[in-house]
Amino acid sequence: MTSIGHRLASLSSHLSENSESQMKIVVCRDLGPDVMPLLRSRSELEIVVWPHDRPSERKWLLDNINGATGLIVVFGEAVTPELLEAAGPNLRVVSTMSVGYEHIDLAAVAARGIKVGYTPDVLTDAVADLSIMLALMASRNAGETMSLVQSGHWPLHSWSPFGFCGPQLSSDGTTKPRTIGFLGFGRIAQATLARLIPFGVKHVIYTGSPSSPPTLERDQALAKEYKLDSILRVDIAELAKESDVLFVLAPGGPKTRHIVNEEVLRKMKKTAILVNASRGTLVDSDALAKALKEKWIWGAGIDVVEGEPKVGMDHCLVKEPRCVVLPHIGSATLETRLAMAALAAKNVLAGVFGEPLPSELNLKS
Amino acid sequence: MTSIGHRLASLSSHLSENSESQMKIVVCRDLGPDVMPLLRSRSELEIVVWPHDRPSERKWLLDNINGATGLIVVFGEAVTPELLEAAGPNLRVVSTMSVGYEHIDLAAVAARGIKVGYTPDVLTDAVADLSIMLALMASRNAGETMSLVQSGHWPLHSWSPFGFCGPQLSSDGTTKPRTIGFLGFGRIAQATLARLIPFGVKHVIYTGSPSSPPTLERDQALAKEYKLDSILRVDIAELAKESDVLFVLAPGGPKTRHIVNEEVLRKMKKTAILVNASRGTLVDSDALAKALKEKWIWGAGIDVVEGEPKVGMDHCLVKEPRCVVLPHIGSATLETRLAMAALAAKNVLAGVFGEPLPSELNLKS
Repeated sequence: MTSIGHRLASLSSHLSENSESQMKIVVCRDLGPDVMPLLRSRSELEIVVWPHDRPSERKWLLDNINGATGLIVVFGEAVTPELLEAAGPNLRVVSTMSVGYEHIDLAAVAARGIKVGYTPDVLTDAVADLSIMLALMASRNAGETMSLVQSGHWPLHSWSPFGFCGPQLSSDGTTKPRTIGFLGFGRIAQATLARLIPFGVKHVIYTGSPSSPPTLERDQALAKEYKLDSILRVDIAELAKESDVLFVLAPGGPKTRHIVNEEVLRKMKKTAILVNASRGTLVDSDALAKALKEKWIWGAGIDVVEGEPKVGMDHCLVKEPRCVVLPHIGSATLETRLAMAALAAKNVLAGVFGEPLPSELNLKS
Repeated sequence: MTSIGHRLASLSSHLSENSESQMKIVVCRDLGPDVMPLLRSRSELEIVVWPHDRPSERKWLLDNINGATGLIVVFGEAVTPELLEAAGPNLRVVSTMSVGYEHIDLAAVAARGIKVGYTPDVLTDAVADLSIMLALMASRNAGETMSLVQSGHWPLHSWSPFGFCGPQLSSDGTTKPRTIGFLGFGRIAQATLARLIPFGVKHVIYTGSPSSPPTLERDQALAKEYKLDSILRVDIAELAKESDVLFVLAPGGPKTRHIVNEEVLRKMKKTAILVNASRGTLVDSDALAKALKEKWIWGAGIDVVEGEPKVGMDHCLVKEPRCVVLPHIGSATLETRLAMAALAAKNVLAGVFGEPLPSELNLKS
């Protein structure tokens, strides 16, 4: 694939010298055999693809971006004023294969009238699936029990009536039903809630953005659909105090940074589980490590860590046996990544041809 | 706890010399502060408890069992003719804190008219929860991705559009819905199915015991309740061929040994997931390791392994990166183990007082 990609890039580069009328699209990562033909099949386009299976080099991008009409990036490839300057006035659209856009200087693209495409919604199911997995793994001591097997200690382990027992996610009516809390109650949180219903969930609490409108009608509809006993919007102190499982599923950025801090964690139940499948910045890592070490809460399952991917073996959360840490694989399913890649390609195509983007970021709000 | 247990055991032993009228119950593992009082509060009983937090020693058991009316064991503590001989004619009931009873010589207890209590049903939810967790972990490469973080390699890992992608458990109508297969379709399998419905499951296949009666009415009721497009009883070849996720949830014993063998695994889809949360003997470990190594199937999540707990680092399945191996924690939740311990205590109490056992194993079938 890499050598084919390389040859195609050379070919594209060669063509560009000969066909001034072609519009150039720079693609920072090969989007695979199912999606690349969407771009390459258009004769009016010159497609320049980073030919390696690793992040594009800045120098390559700056060398190739000049004159481009469209740009496809993935999460982490910074779209800066310098890059936009190098691109020149033709650039109409930046399309990111991600739901997050912290890597794009939105003010700079807006000032140049460049559209931004992104890929929300299509990853809702993949992240909701992972949120359920993390809640179960944190409850059931998956980290510690897998380590026991992997390190060869199972043969030496003696069964005991309450060994490796954690709080049970499901309840059947004879045990106290779990209260499920959501910090942020958007699409992914609601998809996660749907998956929890057969686990016997009857009580839901959540926090919303202070500026968001009342949602009484939606909540009544959810209560009816899922036969809930209660669904309530609460403040974060109440959320911390009452949740048996607390799912952090809110946007990143400065407004939510360290919203889960020591004060919040100290209010939580000793048997509570914290799940974070949104952005690492929402949780204060040091506070969470302390909460786990001192057993303020039962366990945590996190797919994201502040400062990732610079999270090594000595990171305070990686060292906590009751913390399951995954390397940001929330959207990593074949089906979802394919849908994200296809949407990123469609966004860039719509942008270069001056059509409305299938999924355009609103830069005005 | 241990020293208190020891003192209580000594005290009990002392009392037994003085109160010939008391019935003796030998308890092979301390059942914890919530359950032990059920036994100790009865003045007409002498309770002898193994005082350590490890399996009872055979010599201790043989020394103490003489004259006992009741016996509580946990999974793995062998109830043999030798032990029954040592107990003598008073023994009325053997109560095991487990749903399995491979450790009890059923013919020997039946021949002596001894009742056997066990603890099925109460662990249904805990095992169904774990089955969902294992299906998600095997699909989403949880073993490999957790290892990446734990080994300190996350900082060196470069994101790629399809990195760590596995098949998605949920489907939303735009992607092909998953066919879920159950090898064995009893209570735990049906509880697992209930949990899968919000993941978009529409097609269910299962195998049942050849001797079990037709279940058309039940299946129609399930199809209606869960809005399934199809639910079909099939043979094992069809089950292997069509399942996207195959849950092994059938009883152990010689009839089902290695029912999942090389022939079955070769028929499965390349993207299929195998989950075993029942008994290790049902799956041929060598065949499964080969299937994973040669990529006949996508991945496996297993809570049980043939020959456990003698499963070390060099076990063929522990070495497979696509195999999540847990140390038989299916029922390990605080709520479920408490319910199992309480039921084991109630079974032994009913047995010694000549009442019907709340959960008695039918020794006649």
